[in-house]
Amino acid sequence: MPKTIVGVMGPGEGATPEDLINAEELGKRIAAAGWLLLTGGRDEGVMDAAAKGAKAAGGETIGILPTKGPGSTSTHIDIAIYTDLGQGRNSVNVLTSNAVVAVGMGPGTASEVSLALKSGKPVVMMTADKEAVAFFSKLGGPLVTVAADVAAAAAALKKTLE
Amino acid sequence: MPKTIVGVMGPGEGATPEDLINAEELGKRIAAAGWLLLTGGRDEGVMDAAAKGAKAAGGETIGILPTKGPGSTSTHIDIAIYTDLGQGRNSVNVLTSNAVVAVGMGPGTASEVSLALKSGKPVVMMTADKEAVAFFSKLGGPLVTVAADVAAAAAALKKTLE
Amino acid sequence: MPKTIVGVMGPGEGATPEDLINAEELGKRIAAAGWLLLTGGRDEGVMDAAAKGAKAAGGETIGILPTKGPGSTSTHIDIAIYTDLGQGRNSVNVLTSNAVVAVGMGPGTASEVSLALKSGKPVVMMTADKEAVAFFSKLGGPLVTVAADVAAAAAALKKTLE
Amino acid sequence: MPKTIVGVMGPGEGATPEDLINAEELGKRIAAAGWLLLTGGRDEGVMDAAAKGAKAAGGETIGILPTKGPGSTSTHIDIAIYTDLGQGRNSVNVLTSNAVVAVGMGPGTASEVSLALKSGKPVVMMTADKEAVAFFSKLGGPLVTVAADVAAAAAALKKTLE
Repeated sequence: MPKTIVGVMGPGEGATPEDLINAEELGKRIAAAGWLLLTGGRDEGVMDAAAKGAKAAGGETIGILPTKGPGSTSTHIDIAIYTDLGQGRNSVNVLTSNAVVAVGMGPGTASEVSLALKSGKPVVMMTADKEAVAFFSKLGGPLVTVAADVAAAAAALKKTLE
Repeated sequence: MPKTIVGVMGPGEGATPEDLINAEELGKRIAAAGWLLLTGGRDEGVMDAAAKGAKAAGGETIGILPTKGPGSTSTHIDIAIYTDLGQGRNSVNVLTSNAVVAVGMGPGTASEVSLALKSGKPVVMMTADKEAVAFFSKLGGPLVTVAADVAAAAAALKKTLE
Repeated sequence: MPKTIVGVMGPGEGATPEDLINAEELGKRIAAAGWLLLTGGRDEGVMDAAAKGAKAAGGETIGILPTKGPGSTSTHIDIAIYTDLGQGRNSVNVLTSNAVVAVGMGPGTASEVSLALKSGKPVVMMTADKEAVAFFSKLGGPLVTVAADVAAAAAALKKTLE
Repeated sequence: MPKTIVGVMGPGEGATPEDLINAEELGKRIAAAGWLLLTGGRDEGVMDAAAKGAKAAGGETIGILPTKGPGSTSTHIDIAIYTDLGQGRNSVNVLTSNAVVAVGMGPGTASEVSLALKSGKPVVMMTADKEAVAFFSKLGGPLVTVAADVAAAAAALKKTLE
């Protein structure tokens, strides 16, 4: 039977140092909980940091790449899904995840949170962007949980997925 | 040479009466300016109203459908592009548009505005949703214009496209 | 209501001189019949030749591009649909066409004929590739018509679409 | 680093009893070689049989589904990638596979073999369809290997991937 998959979405080159620390720690927690980690697969930003954390904790990682591959694939990805769909792959990211965590914010991440809500997927947000929190909390209602730190994000995932 | 295309995005069943009036009037203005109108193609909400307006003013309409077709296609669509991509088609909507207008707000619309900004496309927003305006104005910076009414939206398009 | 669309598929750089002559003449016939022409949109091979023919006869042309655009778009395309889906756009090509004509043969064209048959779309084949004719005739049964020349292809389209 | 993935493609409901036996045995061989198995993910035909074989031999299985999920997913799939792309997902199947095996033949399978050749991927064919063998051998040249039985298919994969 299919395993539980948690998607961690966030900026590539636009990620802040805090985003990277949070993503790596979150990757560890996801692996420790026995879930698979899914990211956008590239070797940058939140995607790369989350995958690094999951591997450090002995987890398994899936990357849904926008390209034909294999360039720009994170070295921390076990299963590289090459889509050649560009940003069209963002829809695949969220449909494949049982829950989505957004670490940081940017246009690509915003599209993924939006698509997750469109599909009725639970979303956990970790970001200092107050406007993003206000907008998506209103847009998603009970589907959205705002987490102040990684422990809160992990707790929200456990509550949703178990 | 390819013609100029303006995409009008907005909710289907979640559209407000004001959204529908704005979308229809905007469709007329787009046709009158000699631009092609692009929508998500379905027979509902902002998509249907904008296409109705464009046809009333003698324009040409393109619908990018999420389905295999032809069910649920607006009767006001001239060129129906059937993608069977589900919400993955939202990326096609914005990449094909030279500029995007968001009339109203919802999860699908939010994904389209986000993807438009990700691709560097100009976006005009017409919505009473203050949180959406605050979030996307910050996210998109100079790419985003907030229009108080249809005349302002049409003026913003002219400034961008001509 | 949506207009009738005929898709003309065929090789880009691998097209033979005969393929190009056939594609251009077929584009003229499609326009003369009042149908819209759809191609893969690029400025090469069968795609470009068919669009050139359709424009010469006063028709309207749609290109479904694999890219974000606008580079490599045929100058004979009126409506450029930018998908950024790579070869994933081949599925859009056939779902959007009411009938498909394959002029010449190659791997991309073979995928489009296959997808057309998968979707139950009528296919007309114009190719000197005997193995292709034998394979697709068997695979598609009554959906496939083999045309010896452009006149026969146009007649097969008329029979199917009118 | 990403693991090696072998895609097994073939008909769903149109699979023959021989196709099913071959697919299941091939799934076992792929798992025994330490490769991941990729299929179209559904609970039918070659897709289901190959995944069943791989799991029986202790392997790991990936399914690239055409749907939003989770209905129709094979119980033998570990990692279910939900694309909602319809047949557009066929491109993802082949781009993600390091090599593709076609067991049996049908329109969907033909599109996958075609797309694999378009992307320069090695293809192994196991089918009694002589026209398919003749066509794809000509189309793909050295990329295509025709295997008389599962042992020959496994040997061809080893030669290609190791």
